[in-house]
Amino acid sequence: MRIDGALIERRLDELYAIGAEPDGGTFRPLYGPAWAAAGERVERWMKEAGLQTRRDAVGNLWGRADGEGKSIVTGSHIDTVRHGGRLDGALGIVAGLTAVQTLLKDKGTPRRPLEVFAICEEEGSRFATNFWGSSAIVGAIDTPDAAIAEAMRERGLDPARIATAARDDIDTFVELHIEQGAVLEASNRPLAVVSAIAGTAHLEMTVTGRPDHAGTTPMNLRLDALAGAAAMVQAVESIAKSIGKPAVATVGKLEVEPDQINVVPGKVVFTIDLRHSDLGGRRALEERIRSLCTTISQERRLGLAIRTLQEKPPVAMHPDVRALLLRAAKECGVNATEMVSGAGHDAQILAARCQVGMLFVPSVGGRSHCPEEATSPEDIELGTTVLGRALEMLAY
Amino acid sequence: MRIDGALIERRLDELYAIGAEPDGGTFRPLYGPAWAAAGERVERWMKEAGLQTRRDAVGNLWGRADGEGKSIVTGSHIDTVRHGGRLDGALGIVAGLTAVQTLLKDKGTPRRPLEVFAICEEEGSRFATNFWGSSAIVGAIDTPDAAIAEAMRERGLDPARIATAARDDIDTFVELHIEQGAVLEASNRPLAVVSAIAGTAHLEMTVTGRPDHAGTTPMNLRLDALAGAAAMVQAVESIAKSIGKPAVATVGKLEVEPDQINVVPGKVVFTIDLRHSDLGGRRALEERIRSLCTTISQERRLGLAIRTLQEKPPVAMHPDVRALLLRAAKECGVNATEMVSGAGHDAQILAARCQVGMLFVPSVGGRSHCPEEATSPEDIELGTTVLGRALEMLAY
Repeated sequence: MRIDGALIERRLDELYAIGAEPDGGTFRPLYGPAWAAAGERVERWMKEAGLQTRRDAVGNLWGRADGEGKSIVTGSHIDTVRHGGRLDGALGIVAGLTAVQTLLKDKGTPRRPLEVFAICEEEGSRFATNFWGSSAIVGAIDTPDAAIAEAMRERGLDPARIATAARDDIDTFVELHIEQGAVLEASNRPLAVVSAIAGTAHLEMTVTGRPDHAGTTPMNLRLDALAGAAAMVQAVESIAKSIGKPAVATVGKLEVEPDQINVVPGKVVFTIDLRHSDLGGRRALEERIRSLCTTISQERRLGLAIRTLQEKPPVAMHPDVRALLLRAAKECGVNATEMVSGAGHDAQILAARCQVGMLFVPSVGGRSHCPEEATSPEDIELGTTVLGRALEMLAY
Repeated sequence: MRIDGALIERRLDELYAIGAEPDGGTFRPLYGPAWAAAGERVERWMKEAGLQTRRDAVGNLWGRADGEGKSIVTGSHIDTVRHGGRLDGALGIVAGLTAVQTLLKDKGTPRRPLEVFAICEEEGSRFATNFWGSSAIVGAIDTPDAAIAEAMRERGLDPARIATAARDDIDTFVELHIEQGAVLEASNRPLAVVSAIAGTAHLEMTVTGRPDHAGTTPMNLRLDALAGAAAMVQAVESIAKSIGKPAVATVGKLEVEPDQINVVPGKVVFTIDLRHSDLGGRRALEERIRSLCTTISQERRLGLAIRTLQEKPPVAMHPDVRALLLRAAKECGVNATEMVSGAGHDAQILAARCQVGMLFVPSVGGRSHCPEEATSPEDIELGTTVLGRALEMLAY
């Protein structure tokens, strides 16, 4: 099987240009003009590859080569974060489509239905949601909120029809994605088979002190919410480091009130993103962080409210698909490893309805969600070749 | 001398209602409608007291009882912070005006000119300036920036005439103000004579790391700008505590980039407000903070840029005025103490052109710049009586 690496690079360049931002990177928020234009481009490529195309009720784009029984599916999401890179999502669509195109040309009609999708949203690129597209596919969306419904209507989609996007005729989903970390690069491996997607908890911490005049309030009479929050940020980092890999904990957002140069902060709200591949490990990480932050707040006579914003359990990739992907890599002469994905992916949602598996190619410098996001053309071609071999084993 | 405490309270209530915000406190930003309405009210009171009124080029309101030689001046600022309290600024205007009104009634025409002002701005209530009114009086404003000039024009003031607001015919300025801290309350004293206004430095710290995916970047490969900034916030607090009173240091503003729940912060900008009554003490505080923050940034391989936004030396109150205020308090039977002001006041600016002195009355719970700002009517009446006695000693 001979994958056209140059074609993949051209298509990635074309997609990257759609939604390009003047200050770097690209931005294709759900249902926006760049999102729609990118979808039209992919649909054209799907038709060129000989696939029958359709949009489902939430705007997921499907390209299908018909066959018998349940479908073999590949692809990824077409939305991006702000200042997003060239590969996150786009690679899975372009590599999947190019692999399927090559299979159809070389091997003819598949035994099973073979499908490529461009998922409408995975990134939370526009609304306070993510996995919107895959959630619709597994029938997990009831009623969209008013803002999303309005955006759907503007794009010609009927929110009342969301339930029709659900599918129970998918056998296996396989996705090629960039690692978005530096583990493969550091270990000098060109490819990984994902063993599991880490579980995530998002906490929101509200620290309450008392706003006071910065000039007239002696240090010992203060209830400084930011000084307390700073001690908690330090605690979060220390605990994750002391537990060790694969635990990670991140304070990504932090807001101060009243946020004035000469006022002791009265309130701080910050978030914690906690991940671990093992549910027990993630819970232990969270428990230690909750406990130490509570102690810090008590020592400083500060209020502390902890709210769970999101909790996603770890999801294991299907053992049969993992084994098949490792075999495909071996047959292609690729020295693949196995690893846990720290990032979330649509596979963790789709796992509720079908067998799932993922391949990772290395990210240069581990960079992602930024214009510097890159993978060498050799690694992309290699990854796509292994993906194509796996799809062949599954669908022919 | 018999001060009408009830009149003072009524006038404070009236001013507090002008600019009242639906969610508490009052807000009278420079040159806004509430600011103008409050000025008109004070001008009416000045006329009722028999003073000749005028506006200078920046909108400071002056009420004058004529006399021979240089003026004796009292008063305060009429602008407020957002959600400001009932007393900050307003008390100095109302108490000064009521004291002068009482003197004119009881003692007749003063020997020296006796003036009350309502300074247009001291709080940085609207633009990135403060001490705008007093800076104009000492001739320290060259050209206002475009936004301020526009706001002046909208209020009927000509920015080209700012230089005409400068005065060199003021002998002594005395102001009654709330303490805005809890020192008097804690020591159970009803009044303080201010010995000096603390020096302030404002620093802006920019910590640069690298934004990375919160799920895919192991703890040991991160350059987390917020974790570094948190260590610096802790250092600022520790150093100020270890140096002890009257050193204070406050991180009041902090912003995170990109401020996303699932991205390791790449950049943090925060401010430090540093104060000490002694210039050497303030510099030592700053030096230790700069040094430890630099060490933290180096240990964590983060970038650190430090910018001085503002540097104000400590200003001593004039020894003759301090002595006179202590004598006036004693004559009124008030047990006054002396203290350093941690907050800045117009007196520190006016000191460049005249003798200055200040009186502080206690703040309940040390609260200020908030709706809870309060002083007992007894303390207000007592402070105003001492202010009136001092003005009598100076002007009659």
